[in-house]
Amino acid sequence: MDSNIFQKIVQIVGREHCSMEIEERHCYSYDNSKQTFLPDAVALPDSTEQVAALMKLANSNKIPIVARGAGSGTTGGALPIHGGIVLSCTRLNRILEIDPKNQIAIVEPGVITGEFQRKLKKQGLMYAPDPASLKFCTIGGNVAECAGGPSAIKYGVTKDSIIGLEVVLANGDILSTGCRTEKGVVGYDLTRLFVGSEGTLGIITKIITRLLPLPEHKETFLLTSRSLPEATALVATILQENILPCTLEYMDKTAIAIVSDLLPTAPGNEIEAMLIIELDGSRKQTAEQAELLKKLAATRKQCTLKQAVTDQEVYEIWKARRSISPATFKLSPHKTSEDVVVPRSQIPELVRFCEILSRDLELTILTFGHAGDGNIHVNIMSCDTTDQEKTKVTKAKTALFKKVLSMNGTLSGEHGIGISKSAFISMALNDTSMMVMRQIKHLFDKNNILNPGKIFPTDKFSDPSTSY
Amino acid sequence: MDSNIFQKIVQIVGREHCSMEIEERHCYSYDNSKQTFLPDAVALPDSTEQVAALMKLANSNKIPIVARGAGSGTTGGALPIHGGIVLSCTRLNRILEIDPKNQIAIVEPGVITGEFQRKLKKQGLMYAPDPASLKFCTIGGNVAECAGGPSAIKYGVTKDSIIGLEVVLANGDILSTGCRTEKGVVGYDLTRLFVGSEGTLGIITKIITRLLPLPEHKETFLLTSRSLPEATALVATILQENILPCTLEYMDKTAIAIVSDLLPTAPGNEIEAMLIIELDGSRKQTAEQAELLKKLAATRKQCTLKQAVTDQEVYEIWKARRSISPATFKLSPHKTSEDVVVPRSQIPELVRFCEILSRDLELTILTFGHAGDGNIHVNIMSCDTTDQEKTKVTKAKTALFKKVLSMNGTLSGEHGIGISKSAFISMALNDTSMMVMRQIKHLFDKNNILNPGKIFPTDKFSDPSTSY
Repeated sequence: MDSNIFQKIVQIVGREHCSMEIEERHCYSYDNSKQTFLPDAVALPDSTEQVAALMKLANSNKIPIVARGAGSGTTGGALPIHGGIVLSCTRLNRILEIDPKNQIAIVEPGVITGEFQRKLKKQGLMYAPDPASLKFCTIGGNVAECAGGPSAIKYGVTKDSIIGLEVVLANGDILSTGCRTEKGVVGYDLTRLFVGSEGTLGIITKIITRLLPLPEHKETFLLTSRSLPEATALVATILQENILPCTLEYMDKTAIAIVSDLLPTAPGNEIEAMLIIELDGSRKQTAEQAELLKKLAATRKQCTLKQAVTDQEVYEIWKARRSISPATFKLSPHKTSEDVVVPRSQIPELVRFCEILSRDLELTILTFGHAGDGNIHVNIMSCDTTDQEKTKVTKAKTALFKKVLSMNGTLSGEHGIGISKSAFISMALNDTSMMVMRQIKHLFDKNNILNPGKIFPTDKFSDPSTSY
Repeated sequence: MDSNIFQKIVQIVGREHCSMEIEERHCYSYDNSKQTFLPDAVALPDSTEQVAALMKLANSNKIPIVARGAGSGTTGGALPIHGGIVLSCTRLNRILEIDPKNQIAIVEPGVITGEFQRKLKKQGLMYAPDPASLKFCTIGGNVAECAGGPSAIKYGVTKDSIIGLEVVLANGDILSTGCRTEKGVVGYDLTRLFVGSEGTLGIITKIITRLLPLPEHKETFLLTSRSLPEATALVATILQENILPCTLEYMDKTAIAIVSDLLPTAPGNEIEAMLIIELDGSRKQTAEQAELLKKLAATRKQCTLKQAVTDQEVYEIWKARRSISPATFKLSPHKTSEDVVVPRSQIPELVRFCEILSRDLELTILTFGHAGDGNIHVNIMSCDTTDQEKTKVTKAKTALFKKVLSMNGTLSGEHGIGISKSAFISMALNDTSMMVMRQIKHLFDKNNILNPGKIFPTDKFSDPSTSY
């Protein structure tokens, strides 16, 4: 990067809040997609005005600018694949307002999601979205990727909790979207256009969230089943029976095996699948829903439902669930992680398909995740990175996506497209959709400086081999 | 309209499904904004393909095209203010699919909302949005305007129940947005861009809705209060106390007076305000929430809470509530109806402001509506249409909007902008927002044929005096 440009960055954010040092740049070069791209510079602005000034600078000099939260995303959304400036939101980390009466809050993008929830809990309030990384991920990243989590089945994903935004556009203009009330139909819904846009349309600098009263009580259940089809078929039935859990997670036999030592009681070898089911609400509501759940489970011969009695048991169940993803490396050193979605009633078919795929291609494939909303994490494990193994993985991935789409599902439920799935996006979206989305991208970002190379398939702008 | 153009319309939809007759055109010239604009022709397509062909024809000849449901909108959204073609969705009225397992449905825009709900009820399902006009309004109109209703407080407005759309674009291309699953983050959220866009970005031809299990039980309460501030302050408190009603409607003394003869027991003269509160869910849940509500009401000295015991009582309460709007004409022959939104905690201040405004300007102003989400219907009554009276009404409206915005509220919660509020939209949206919205409009509709003159303030395209 031209030292004149860097000098201007220094003027905007101050010398101590930007860097071109290689050590610093390395710290902002990776994310949870396990890939690495070095930015040319890093800037840590402290205000909307500083973000606007950085954007003007980047735009007039056609320098890529990539907003970054905690780098916990799995599809490469935070990677500066064309270099340029990484704009870290670390210092934009203020909770500006919590309004208990109107059940909203206003926060900056760098606020850590779990911290925000902890603060709200003290006031008897809840911000519902609960991505696995909530202890360290930021709400700005959650909004940019439209993160999900186990509670999405009852409370929705990130988009369902966001009612307004402040966004700095590519030219430095500051846009306010939505409002501080749930209702509002004044012009087009721009809020939702930015949620899940992966930093490609603007930089989010303020977030207005919907809050909920903290549920009084929660009960946790573990359902083990000797029959995979019986367990997976139960998912749609639970919801049809008017039980609305706040968690309805599933794991297959392979997933269970790698974390079974963490569970309160290790499941026997005959267990083919497991569901974690949680109910929340008032004590009475929870008890009523628990009764319904117990009755339903009793009709399933292959299933056993156990209620967690102590906090320690609940802790262990969640520790096991959250450990699946890292524990997969016990199986093989390389992983391709997909988060496909199918209509709930199709989960048994998807799981069966993955079993066949695994056998046919001789690859370990495990399935687990947010069954309640049909969002199944399919992890394809591979032994090495030889061309032969890579070809098998691509074959598995392509077959999986085809199958999911044929079942009226979609490619990603919460991880986004980034660079990991951009080559596959045209399987899910037809030419008209792609054209409209590209036109919207161009409308907001004529110079293609905003997180270039993400979402859309490689073209002259987004080809990683093209330098700026 | 050129007879060649009309001949092409005939070729597309068939002779019996279009007209240029003055009698027919009159039937499509009005809506509930009480204004009238004659279209040049009316077409009633039967399929997406016919809509696409009509759009291509209109676009290549730069003829305005205005989609129409039942004409129940209150802001002029369905009015062909520049003439052109009214595209009636009456024949696009098929319920294409109801999927109880995955709790979604696919419908065409001309389906009558109440009919859809009746069909779902038989299957133990619910499509939640319940605009007052649900017996005759269409779901397409609801989506275009993002209609609300009393149940929005618990179940959200129309946008919260729509997960995907099929839309015919200005050039006749057919766009699919969203998907059949709740989760999905593949590219930009185009669904929400079309919901509430008032027919200005495309013509909606299919709608994928989220469904919910039908609640087992409902209880209805009437809270009368001798103190207006005490009643209105209770609204925010109810929600803070973890009571989540499916209805939380309010009416002031003037509203009560004009419908009191319809109520089970006419409230005494000392009653200053009334709340209709409904609770739904399982019987146990409803009973538990009812207990909380009774306890809370008992702490308010000026309030009396009565539970409706018979279906007849419930019917009468709702008949009274739904009759407020037409009954306002008992007071004065002319009405300006606003549906402003304020944060719930600000309702007492808004109501007080309206009282002062009414006294200062010597206008009858009544307030009622969806208090639970801060969406208050403010009706400004006037005796005649003299310039003096009109000036007073505009003064009242402007002061109301200023006050609402100063309280972090917004101009419209569910009626939309249309032509009624377009002159005021720039009070709520700054230049950047307006510019972005106009650019999006231009992106989707270069020739400005899609419901021209709506939402945006009058300009060379939308000035009603400009002929095409």
